[in-house]
Amino acid sequence: MDQRITLITLGVSDLRRSTSFYEALGWRGQEVEETVFFQAGGMGLVLWSREKLARDSGVPGLPSGDGFDGIVLAQNLRSAAEVDELIARAESAGAAITRAPAETFYGGYAGCFADPDGHLWEIAFNPGLPLEDDGSLRIPELG
Amino acid sequence: MDQRITLITLGVSDLRRSTSFYEALGWRGQEVEETVFFQAGGMGLVLWSREKLARDSGVPGLPSGDGFDGIVLAQNLRSAAEVDELIARAESAGAAITRAPAETFYGGYAGCFADPDGHLWEIAFNPGLPLEDDGSLRIPELG
Repeated sequence: MDQRITLITLGVSDLRRSTSFYEALGWRGQEVEETVFFQAGGMGLVLWSREKLARDSGVPGLPSGDGFDGIVLAQNLRSAAEVDELIARAESAGAAITRAPAETFYGGYAGCFADPDGHLWEIAFNPGLPLEDDGSLRIPELG
Repeated sequence: MDQRITLITLGVSDLRRSTSFYEALGWRGQEVEETVFFQAGGMGLVLWSREKLARDSGVPGLPSGDGFDGIVLAQNLRSAAEVDELIARAESAGAAITRAPAETFYGGYAGCFADPDGHLWEIAFNPGLPLEDDGSLRIPELG
């Protein structure tokens, strides 16, 4: 597994409020389908519904105080085969697989695991978010 | 504020167990004073005691289920003055300042704020973790 994080998704309860907050700090992002993508150095910071994020990550996660971090780290890879390989390796390492690798609604392939403290990782192949040669992620024009 | 995350710290309940887990995934880090630093692309991923992380971030945060994410994003800057400026800006943007900027035990200067959902950011000047010209963070030999 490469030592790399390509996306961090923050679960938020009010997308408008959170987007305004980050904009007030000077961040500029792109909103697509109730999801806001900010370029953050060589990676992406994403704002998305906390409930959808929990569901999408395969954890029950309802309101806060439920043991769901509300944050998911992601490592994007270059193929579905690499996703299967890394999820299998995580399982061998003792991770709980919270979502088995499968095709995704965005035309990619991904799975999720929880580390020993329940911190979630999504391992994804997403043809819509291609990786640079050095493995960094440059968010394309999404509009 | 630059659109950049320089460190992600995962709060863990058993440093040994978590370090073994990430090592089993193939990650290699440096352990210094019960803290493990992994280079992760142009940033750092850090494992540290969940309780210490909560305390250090200015939130009560005891066991899980307390509303503490257990994850802190950080943006490292180049001076104490830049830290003050950004924390003030975050406060104007509506952030809760969970730890007012002050000198730190590692000879730096830092403060913490919570975004609208309580996701924590540490804004830090840390002379021991110098930034590259492009703003990325290269973890030095810490031994």
